Amino acid sequence: MSLDLNQLVTSLAQRARAASFVLATAPAAAKNAALEKLADLIDASHFMLLESNQRDLLSPEAGALTPAVRDRLTLNEMRLRHLAASVREVVALPDPVGESLEEITRPNGLRIRKLRVPIGVIGIIFESRPNVTIDCAVLCLKSGNAALLRGGKECFHTNMALASLVSQALVAANLPGDAVQLVPTTDRAALNTLLKLDSLIHCLIPRGGEGLIRYVAENSTIPVIKHYKGVCFVYLDAAADPAMAESITVNAKTQRPGVCNAAEQLLVHRSVAPKLLPEIARALAAQQVELRCDSTSGTILRDAQLPFTPAKSSDYTTEFLDRILAIRIVDSLEDAIATINRDGSGHSDAIVTGDESAARRFLAAVDSATVYWNASTRFTDGFEFGYGAEIGISTDRLHARGPMGLRELCTYKFVIEGTGQIRNDAFRPEPLK
Amino acid sequence: MSLDLNQLVTSLAQRARAASFVLATAPAAAKNAALEKLADLIDASHFMLLESNQRDLLSPEAGALTPAVRDRLTLNEMRLRHLAASVREVVALPDPVGESLEEITRPNGLRIRKLRVPIGVIGIIFESRPNVTIDCAVLCLKSGNAALLRGGKECFHTNMALASLVSQALVAANLPGDAVQLVPTTDRAALNTLLKLDSLIHCLIPRGGEGLIRYVAENSTIPVIKHYKGVCFVYLDAAADPAMAESITVNAKTQRPGVCNAAEQLLVHRSVAPKLLPEIARALAAQQVELRCDSTSGTILRDAQLPFTPAKSSDYTTEFLDRILAIRIVDSLEDAIATINRDGSGHSDAIVTGDESAARRFLAAVDSATVYWNASTRFTDGFEFGYGAEIGISTDRLHARGPMGLRELCTYKFVIEGTGQIRNDAFRPEPLK
Repeated sequence: MSLDLNQLVTSLAQRARAASFVLATAPAAAKNAALEKLADLIDASHFMLLESNQRDLLSPEAGALTPAVRDRLTLNEMRLRHLAASVREVVALPDPVGESLEEITRPNGLRIRKLRVPIGVIGIIFESRPNVTIDCAVLCLKSGNAALLRGGKECFHTNMALASLVSQALVAANLPGDAVQLVPTTDRAALNTLLKLDSLIHCLIPRGGEGLIRYVAENSTIPVIKHYKGVCFVYLDAAADPAMAESITVNAKTQRPGVCNAAEQLLVHRSVAPKLLPEIARALAAQQVELRCDSTSGTILRDAQLPFTPAKSSDYTTEFLDRILAIRIVDSLEDAIATINRDGSGHSDAIVTGDESAARRFLAAVDSATVYWNASTRFTDGFEFGYGAEIGISTDRLHARGPMGLRELCTYKFVIEGTGQIRNDAFRPEPLK
Repeated sequence: MSLDLNQLVTSLAQRARAASFVLATAPAAAKNAALEKLADLIDASHFMLLESNQRDLLSPEAGALTPAVRDRLTLNEMRLRHLAASVREVVALPDPVGESLEEITRPNGLRIRKLRVPIGVIGIIFESRPNVTIDCAVLCLKSGNAALLRGGKECFHTNMALASLVSQALVAANLPGDAVQLVPTTDRAALNTLLKLDSLIHCLIPRGGEGLIRYVAENSTIPVIKHYKGVCFVYLDAAADPAMAESITVNAKTQRPGVCNAAEQLLVHRSVAPKLLPEIARALAAQQVELRCDSTSGTILRDAQLPFTPAKSSDYTTEFLDRILAIRIVDSLEDAIATINRDGSGHSDAIVTGDESAARRFLAAVDSATVYWNASTRFTDGFEFGYGAEIGISTDRLHARGPMGLRELCTYKFVIEGTGQIRNDAFRPEPLK
């Protein structure tokens, strides 16, 4: 059984690799034709897709799901229309493949071009949400990559139905149907096999809870691009404008509390805390936000007769994804920077200040993918950056950091044209390996 | 004992991480001052360095080394002068940190800049050659990264002596001495601890044999940038100019046979093989190159009364690093492309042809870091690209591909400046994690 699964997964990956060579040089028109066809197929397949989704929702596994997860798993007519629309949006994005990143002509006449090219085969390992199946398939396809998708068991039938539409769309556009494949089993042994296929799969992107992401990162020999969590900070500096401090804090915390770029942590400079905190606490309380305070900020709120909870130390590193905000008082800008670099997740952190030199120091020294001066952390998002659809937000440093769109699903190659140049230099030390 | 080593390595990494924050925002002048000082210290410390090197060469481990490895391990006055000169060359390179990669102003007024910044802490795991210690330290320092170096036991005393000079130079330039540290043990348990410190070390670069690189890649939870091997191909197309075919083949194979960008594999189009091969074989024989031939190419050489060896199948995927060339006849351009994509290492591959459409197809379809049209594979080298010193050549696809210099030791961050912008849009689906 386990041997069969090994063979099955290896064979899928081999077919993905073969398809990746075709996709890598496929013209933009063919890739866009496949995407248009996919959107049409989604529109024309509501009955089949909703039926598959019902099988998942009625399965024994689904009985144990929380209402929130169950909701994320559920398809309906409106969500399917949005799904098709999101596919058509990707058609409109520019093709990243072939873009020239650099051109050099060397003294010996060699013409060196650094060109953007697809990575090859990308493995996506994800949980529950069926729209991830389509999002990932579509972004990989547009960027010229083959994709191997491994979804969660709660969504198995829905994913199989969606993946079959993707293959149909590829074939209709004369592209290999194997360019996007769903692993047709959620067996853990099959996943473990996949994680070691480093000669066939070039990159893994796990999407889901921290447990899944850590499991993939620790067990894979394939390079992984990860997003662990977003423990985002807002720091209100000594020179913060009070109205801006309040609106940015409230927006960063409450506009959408369940997402990774929402603020979880508030730092306030000691000199302005008595003045700023009560107003902000009132505004947050009006939005049903629970405040978890250190002793100094708690004292300020107590004196102002405002509600708060004393913070536990674990609150200072927690991604609440909820209407909860941890608050601490800091003694200085440097204290704020050190706190963020120690307790944050390197995702998105903001300073509110009218002091440009404080802002410049914060922007340079906070070691995060996205750093903000006088703006909400909520803007960390491929759409808000003007990049279009994103496949995720990387908290890694290698290859991609921050929002990952089509360009981040590409690598580059050096294309060098000569007229017979050979190398004939005095030896300089070169790496032997 | 093993517990102490765990603590030791963890403590080194913590100090490296602390130093990395200082180095990340250090001005170019301070980093260059440290490099100048290091070059001066190397010049002034020949006696101490040669004595340390003698301890390594006289150690019991050194007795078992091959003459070639022993030679690579050996320092002398001339090599030390070259080492200091190579440090001074890096001073002259532009500082990559802070370079603006992209600037966007959004309709809401947000100013988004994508800036090049250091990765953070880089671990280098390498074997034998003492100049690697200095090369890596210097390139990490110039690019604003802290470095943790773990060298081989054959070179332990030399590496300790060199690392002490680096720390002295850092301190003399008012930079943290911990920004470059050598792991002061070659114990495997210490290495295994280091490979798991993913919260403190952001990137590993193993340099050495394939066994070491594979061990690091398989056992580390830290992202690894690798260079497995260079099995480089030259393909002589149906429309190859005979004189150019010969000079490129001979240069790619013989100018320096022991390096990764030397050709190991020759493919010849069936239609021109009888005409091209005998001349090229004669030229290669004059350079003492052993030819390992498939049956068709062997028959051509036999008919021309030229020496050859029948190839084993393993020869077609081997990095010989020696005066050996495997030769195969292919039926078509597509056959050559498929052969390279199947048997090559994705390093550097060349086509020789006067047919532009064949060349364009080859350049697009061969999935390698560097692809050449009418030039020798030997040009894959940071110096030859005009990039200056390189820390290695990546055969990976993520983050860096091909020659890795100072820019490839950096990541980027998004620095966003606003005037109080908050997000207040209709919800669109966003990744929850």
